[in-house]
Amino acid sequence: MHIDILTLFPEMFPGVLESSILKRAKERGAFDYNLINFRDFTEDKHHKVDDYPYGGGAGLVLKPQPVFDAVESIIEKTEKQPRVILLCPQGERYNQAKAEELSKEDHLVFICGHYEGYDERIREALVTDEISIGDFVLTGGELGAMVMMDSIVRLIPGVLGNEDSAVQDSFSTGLLEHPHYTRPANFRGMQVPDVLLSGNHAAIDEWRHKESLHRTYSRRPDLLTNRSFSPQEEQWIEEWEKKIQKDEES
Amino acid sequence: MHIDILTLFPEMFPGVLESSILKRAKERGAFDYNLINFRDFTEDKHHKVDDYPYGGGAGLVLKPQPVFDAVESIIEKTEKQPRVILLCPQGERYNQAKAEELSKEDHLVFICGHYEGYDERIREALVTDEISIGDFVLTGGELGAMVMMDSIVRLIPGVLGNEDSAVQDSFSTGLLEHPHYTRPANFRGMQVPDVLLSGNHAAIDEWRHKESLHRTYSRRPDLLTNRSFSPQEEQWIEEWEKKIQKDEES
Repeated sequence: MHIDILTLFPEMFPGVLESSILKRAKERGAFDYNLINFRDFTEDKHHKVDDYPYGGGAGLVLKPQPVFDAVESIIEKTEKQPRVILLCPQGERYNQAKAEELSKEDHLVFICGHYEGYDERIREALVTDEISIGDFVLTGGELGAMVMMDSIVRLIPGVLGNEDSAVQDSFSTGLLEHPHYTRPANFRGMQVPDVLLSGNHAAIDEWRHKESLHRTYSRRPDLLTNRSFSPQEEQWIEEWEKKIQKDEES
Repeated sequence: MHIDILTLFPEMFPGVLESSILKRAKERGAFDYNLINFRDFTEDKHHKVDDYPYGGGAGLVLKPQPVFDAVESIIEKTEKQPRVILLCPQGERYNQAKAEELSKEDHLVFICGHYEGYDERIREALVTDEISIGDFVLTGGELGAMVMMDSIVRLIPGVLGNEDSAVQDSFSTGLLEHPHYTRPANFRGMQVPDVLLSGNHAAIDEWRHKESLHRTYSRRPDLLTNRSFSPQEEQWIEEWEKKIQKDEES
């Protein structure tokens, strides 16, 4: 996979992209990237990338020309149209399904604006995907692009070892993960649950399944909408509902 | 505000934290940060931070001792208990309200795990807030911590200039932003809407309000739940609903 990143702050990226799993993925040839400062595509002598908004108001707006020229300099060298992704709060909410979809592409282009808005014609004529990583305000699109790259590149076959892949699988159950414990069994008086030390694998699996469902039930009930439950799961949920009712009554 | 960051990959941070608005915020004294590699707190000669999970299974689990000792080395130097934030997919979903809440704190500690899980006793005894930035899988907590820091620090009074603050306000309306345009009025045949060139400010405000509502209505209807609409807004929504119905019939 090749990734082009349009940004006014290219110095933000190497620390993240040259560490840990992304570094290893690049060394293995699973992906490479190119940082493009679209200020280099400005045509005026002050190298201005933004200008006042038509209709008035605070904040500056990214001009269309430097971004159009930068994206076109990429596209004219490729045979196949890449996915061109704009990071912005107005975009589609990013999630794991989108990461999986994009991990199958050969070529991605990220456009990172800074806190100003984008000229609407960039959206209309250049961009294939507008994406928001969440309902919070960031100073620019750079961190959103890094978040997307991290979640996408780790899904490219061969990037994660077998051990890590299992971790990935555990998310695809649609439930939050159960608690984990490692040595020592007693840490400052805090004990690991007996069942995990029992060696009884059926009991361990059941405990993990129940804890996983309970954590999801109490923290993220939205993830359980549209899920069909096994009779065992229904019985557990009934237990928890009874307990909540009892707690409320007392 | 002081921020301590516990991580196994401190080299990921400076590129982001020493750029743009975060750099300026640090120079102005609005915040400072300290990177702590909790591997430095290991007590065995191999400096191991993780170990096999009790009960079996793939993946390694972060040991409690190095993380406890690292957090306690911070707390013993402070008078007031800091907020201790764990980045993990099981956490509360991060949003702008949480960013505003945390921007009022004096001292934050971020614990960034890597793709392994955390020993549950870290959660139970050390952490005040478990946070997830979204429903996608990252290789570690570092990018989540950077996203949170960026969104929090920009809210500290004095960090953003007046122009930027207005941008922030426009999010607090609960609607997505309207389209922006800047010069030229005609870019490769794509025109700026006439109303924005009209100089009629009442008409411009109405156009922006309508576009903002329409974008939210079509892209993120979830943001409109629990909103009360003005008679004008209700009329617009009726228009759009009629149009959708008509399109479906034809």
